[in-house]
Amino acid sequence: MIVTAIDNPLIKDLTALHDASGRRQVGAFLVEGRRAIAGLLTAGWKPLQLCVRQGEDVPTDWPAVVTLGERAAAKASTASTPSGYLAVFGIPEHGPVDRPAGGLVLAGVSDPGNLGTLLRTAAAFAVPQVVCIGGADPFGPKVVQASAGAIAAIRLHRAGWSDLTGGAVLTALVPRGGVAPAALSAGCRWLVVGGEADGIPSDGLAACVDRLTLPMPGAAVESLNAAVAGAIALWEVFARPAAGR
Amino acid sequence: MIVTAIDNPLIKDLTALHDASGRRQVGAFLVEGRRAIAGLLTAGWKPLQLCVRQGEDVPTDWPAVVTLGERAAAKASTASTPSGYLAVFGIPEHGPVDRPAGGLVLAGVSDPGNLGTLLRTAAAFAVPQVVCIGGADPFGPKVVQASAGAIAAIRLHRAGWSDLTGGAVLTALVPRGGVAPAALSAGCRWLVVGGEADGIPSDGLAACVDRLTLPMPGAAVESLNAAVAGAIALWEVFARPAAGR
Repeated sequence: MIVTAIDNPLIKDLTALHDASGRRQVGAFLVEGRRAIAGLLTAGWKPLQLCVRQGEDVPTDWPAVVTLGERAAAKASTASTPSGYLAVFGIPEHGPVDRPAGGLVLAGVSDPGNLGTLLRTAAAFAVPQVVCIGGADPFGPKVVQASAGAIAAIRLHRAGWSDLTGGAVLTALVPRGGVAPAALSAGCRWLVVGGEADGIPSDGLAACVDRLTLPMPGAAVESLNAAVAGAIALWEVFARPAAGR
Repeated sequence: MIVTAIDNPLIKDLTALHDASGRRQVGAFLVEGRRAIAGLLTAGWKPLQLCVRQGEDVPTDWPAVVTLGERAAAKASTASTPSGYLAVFGIPEHGPVDRPAGGLVLAGVSDPGNLGTLLRTAAAFAVPQVVCIGGADPFGPKVVQASAGAIAAIRLHRAGWSDLTGGAVLTALVPRGGVAPAALSAGCRWLVVGGEADGIPSDGLAACVDRLTLPMPGAAVESLNAAVAGAIALWEVFARPAAGR
């Protein structure tokens, strides 16, 4: 069967996932691109839908695929240049936050590219879990794309500060006034990274017991890119100690 | 005077700077956005042209400003949503590469966002100089935007490998097979970061005496974003030692 009509119920179901409220209601999200979808399938994720544009090559190990006509595929996609490969996966539920295990808190990171890059970095450094408090929807298409498949490798929670109080020792990454990474206590398990414009909200900052600041010898530059600063802090807290500090 | 005609010679001069060949021919580049322009002016740069769209506020300390009509301003801009502030600056010439001083070599970094982010990070960490070999034009509008004004704080060379041979001890950042940062020799002064797809070209790799690899405990993830990997390596080579390793 080939779905060609852009008002087909399937296409309507797919376009409903273009915005955060639709994703939240259905409990599912879109993944576009052959490589990104293959990554999730390899990680053992089961797609709710798998769609390929007519004429595109279908990998032999992919489960039941629906073929979409050109216009239907364009309508279903969020990309300006659709890849022709589109899948729907359920948003995973990971139960409560594991406070003693530690992880990364993203508090108000609103740029989808930065959010996706931080998720990718967290996955590369085997960060135990990521807690998103406000900011962009981590299951939005631009975030999923920037995360380069990392969404499959991460235990991701959407939560509030109350889910972290008691048992989670939080270290805030702040642009100034914190200690240097070398002075960070070895017990640091949770890193909190704030939004691009306003940093960590005051209620969140109040919940943090330590503050970390990356020294910047280059005085002429105001700040690092948010994803870069967060990545270096993740490296210092999670990856460098594992590699033998 | 207000320039309203989109075929005005000034507008033609500005649009000529939209592509790399025009910038190279004229020896100048565009900076868009009030904040970015203000940053360069504060750093002492003298604009060749300073244009503001009719109706926008003009900072009192800005030198001679040309007012552009709505359509002329849109034509002159490379942005889909022009800020209304546009300046032309000369591409600076810094003389030969200072080999013993060290710095960052960007070899074939082709994504303008990644290139700009790496320049911003290098400036924040007071990297003595940056040498671009191939890759995106560092004076392209998307690079300048992503660099967030760092272009003013950096000694930037466009050069070839021959400009580095003899006197520059090069360390290649490679995805696998190199030593961990902690094992890096204290004499490391030059970091070489390659392009997103193909890494460092083979002739460049042959010129490197050391290889550095960031350990990635998260086996499920293939790689870090190029700007993130480069930033962490810059942190390890230039900023962390300065902050007291």
